Amino acid sequence: MSKLVIVGTVAFDAIETPFGKTDKILGGAATYIGLAASKFNADGAIVSIVGGDFPEDYIAMLENNGLDIEGLEIVEEGKTFFWSGKYHNDMNSRDTLATELNVLEHFNPKVPSDYADAEVVMLGNLHPMVQIGVIEQMNNPKLIVLDTMNFWMDNTLSELKQVISKVNVVTINDEEARQLTGEYSLVVAAKEIMEMGPDYVVIKKGEHGALLFHEEEVFFAPALPLEEVFDPTGAGDTFAGGFTGYLAKTGDYSFENMKNAIIYGSALASFCVEKFGTERLLNVSKKEIQRRLKQFQDLTQFDIEIT
Amino acid sequence: MSKLVIVGTVAFDAIETPFGKTDKILGGAATYIGLAASKFNADGAIVSIVGGDFPEDYIAMLENNGLDIEGLEIVEEGKTFFWSGKYHNDMNSRDTLATELNVLEHFNPKVPSDYADAEVVMLGNLHPMVQIGVIEQMNNPKLIVLDTMNFWMDNTLSELKQVISKVNVVTINDEEARQLTGEYSLVVAAKEIMEMGPDYVVIKKGEHGALLFHEEEVFFAPALPLEEVFDPTGAGDTFAGGFTGYLAKTGDYSFENMKNAIIYGSALASFCVEKFGTERLLNVSKKEIQRRLKQFQDLTQFDIEIT
Repeated sequence: MSKLVIVGTVAFDAIETPFGKTDKILGGAATYIGLAASKFNADGAIVSIVGGDFPEDYIAMLENNGLDIEGLEIVEEGKTFFWSGKYHNDMNSRDTLATELNVLEHFNPKVPSDYADAEVVMLGNLHPMVQIGVIEQMNNPKLIVLDTMNFWMDNTLSELKQVISKVNVVTINDEEARQLTGEYSLVVAAKEIMEMGPDYVVIKKGEHGALLFHEEEVFFAPALPLEEVFDPTGAGDTFAGGFTGYLAKTGDYSFENMKNAIIYGSALASFCVEKFGTERLLNVSKKEIQRRLKQFQDLTQFDIEIT
Repeated sequence: MSKLVIVGTVAFDAIETPFGKTDKILGGAATYIGLAASKFNADGAIVSIVGGDFPEDYIAMLENNGLDIEGLEIVEEGKTFFWSGKYHNDMNSRDTLATELNVLEHFNPKVPSDYADAEVVMLGNLHPMVQIGVIEQMNNPKLIVLDTMNFWMDNTLSELKQVISKVNVVTINDEEARQLTGEYSLVVAAKEIMEMGPDYVVIKKGEHGALLFHEEEVFFAPALPLEEVFDPTGAGDTFAGGFTGYLAKTGDYSFENMKNAIIYGSALASFCVEKFGTERLLNVSKKEIQRRLKQFQDLTQFDIEIT
């Protein structure tokens, strides 16, 4: 069991899908990552910031899920980061209706001293300089995983490339991989990203699954085919939390073990999309996770004798 | 080793991709299906029609690949079916530039008497009444596989539904499955298609792989991630030919064995797209196929102990 540092937003989201809409509910990258990682009883610490409007119940819930919150700064006079979005009918694209940075505008992350020696660091989507600020507080971590998005490519590309050069794994979606490299082929794009520094690249294709690249090797995990995707919010972060949570639990950062981590991440993400926000993730049982892993085996495993 | 009847077009194609263009080259669904099936030394017969302009060399080549061509009608005074298309830069969509039905307009398929007892029938994309005409000439086949496309949904839906009700397996692409059922979710769409008669539905997602549905079960095979797709023409037919060729060779039509058949079909399709037309399929060696199957194993197989 290794320690895991999770940096990312802890936020309010207001979500509209073809199935309904929510008021302000709990959201944020670090929230989803932390809750997913907690399924492995990972020793995880959340490094983030919220305002005085953030309910104590939510903080208690994070703690009850075994997450250390010493690094969760509370700015009493500030307001929590807020995002609002509306999904289109195909659930694959969305419009952002509102983004209020609030306390995130002046976020200076502080890694708790107990976690400076963590082996695994999960850098959730945030300003690249904040991500670098976290790396600089770590004592020789074994695995740094970076998530990012197109916004940082558009606005802070040179800082983003700086953080990419410092991490072991980049997770990124297919369109962002194409934007970052100017290459249409995901195989070529992944190779170019590895040339920027990381040893591993995970390309997330949403309902079409995820690819893990390492040197000349590649592994693929499908998304579980679902009758209905209710709310995709947080699926990518849940995937990242399952991925890093499993790696931290096992302490094995090999390509072979990353295959399993990708499957665990995909399994947890498949729960996340079944309800609004974190609801399903909070209620999922160990037995349900086991059953879903079995579904992933049935979905992908075959037995060909190559003659 | 079971016999395999293959009905579909044998044609001339003229193809334009971002990488170049061809004059009239050998094409057609039955051509790709037959060449793919021939990799398993399947005892396959092509049921199709060509004009007097169809080169004897091509016919000899089909025979040299072990395909029976007694059912390949030659209309000396007619012209061979011609299709011309241009792929967009993403290689996922294309414009049809020309479709000349020619001899196909009055095609009355004749299954050779030696093959009326074939166990496997592959109905390549053609007018549904032609497909039904083939089924009616068969003596109790064990497996009938149907491929079709949106054109027949737009123009001959009731005939298409008639043929769907008579087959065991439908292969169809994702957009067509949605069009046929009015359902966005592929899981729901597959269930609706199974309610129309077939026990199995294969939904092809191009570069995103293929799904096999049967009762409550589902299996997924990814497409091999390639640095470059040179020409997608014939990939779906090659997939169908690999699928049915493997099933005919093994004579095992269970869901478990269909998983392997899907992997073989995907492996052969991954060769097809590497060159224009049938070129790569004609030159691929047994060793290359074995190596690619190994790549599919590495791509998808993992070893999680569910505890």
